[in-house]
Amino acid sequence: MRLEVEENDVDDVLLPPSNFSMVEDGIFRSGFPRPANFPFLKNLNLRSIIYLCPEPYPEENLEFLRANNIKLFQFKIEGKKEPFVSMPKDAILDALKILIDVRNHPILIHCKRGKHRTGSLVGCLRKFQNWCLTSVFEEYQRFAGMKSRTTDLQFIETFDISLLRQCVYSIIYQYQGYSQSKRRLVYREENLQKPQPTSV
Amino acid sequence: MRLEVEENDVDDVLLPPSNFSMVEDGIFRSGFPRPANFPFLKNLNLRSIIYLCPEPYPEENLEFLRANNIKLFQFKIEGKKEPFVSMPKDAILDALKILIDVRNHPILIHCKRGKHRTGSLVGCLRKFQNWCLTSVFEEYQRFAGMKSRTTDLQFIETFDISLLRQCVYSIIYQYQGYSQSKRRLVYREENLQKPQPTSV
Repeated sequence: MRLEVEENDVDDVLLPPSNFSMVEDGIFRSGFPRPANFPFLKNLNLRSIIYLCPEPYPEENLEFLRANNIKLFQFKIEGKKEPFVSMPKDAILDALKILIDVRNHPILIHCKRGKHRTGSLVGCLRKFQNWCLTSVFEEYQRFAGMKSRTTDLQFIETFDISLLRQCVYSIIYQYQGYSQSKRRLVYREENLQKPQPTSV
Repeated sequence: MRLEVEENDVDDVLLPPSNFSMVEDGIFRSGFPRPANFPFLKNLNLRSIIYLCPEPYPEENLEFLRANNIKLFQFKIEGKKEPFVSMPKDAILDALKILIDVRNHPILIHCKRGKHRTGSLVGCLRKFQNWCLTSVFEEYQRFAGMKSRTTDLQFIETFDISLLRQCVYSIIYQYQGYSQSKRRLVYREENLQKPQPTSV
């Protein structure tokens, strides 16, 4: 946040990308950044960008990334408009793994408009954070507006977040490696995959 | 952000207040928090709340504040629906001074719906951060939706942010107190209040 007062602050008007917002500490979302947005993005001190479209990244954007040492993670998700075409689960899961890794923060998620692909990824992040679905959907719709898609909401609702939890448990085990944790971990993973007979 | 995996994380569904969002590091916004939202708010580790309505704060909310050592700053702004009734400039300026003081962070801004009063305050903060008006308005409208008010947009557009800048210069001077800065400061304040003849 720019609260410092410097000589040039009064004059330099900043242009955030369309649909820009902070998601969490170190996580931002937006529509496609144009060169006019680069001075604004520079202030975020980004370490990485998650780009959710199949189209190649424009050369001027790549140049901005190189100049500011920003890593690009591209997940080629089509911007389908047909009904019954849903987000690809594997790509969203892989993007989530990059997104929650604090070594990649500060990180910007963007697609073309910052509505459907970005909104679906953020929706899955909120499920991982245990937000109730009502709030997850409210946030999705705030950014999608009139373009809100039922297929995206259904994708978010049915996305199996336990896949990501298992991955996080594995990473924690990998780094900490306690045998006590391992036993607990295996139990938790089994528990997530196969519900206890009492709960069936 | 809750990325730690604990025993109880999988089960505890969190209910953010309506229209909840992060604004900046240490600044959040929302509609009126209900008791069901308190477990979520507890995770934000709030130090203060800016409340923008004239109605008294409910006892159960006051109890939550006491239990979590959160300071309440109330600015009694009417939720007018009549056209041509604008935000009170002095109250918004005073709220901004509280808002940008990092000693009050993490801080939550809220009114009733998190649309008009909260949206106007956040809009003025964005002007202070030198955001272009297009982006300020886009953000206001994202939260106000169909309830967007032209009077609020006009208030944000015409709000004289140099008043806040002068206040920030004064605070910086008060804390740092260099005679060099003082001269520059006086010059800047005069400059802001009285435009140079060349620019008239």
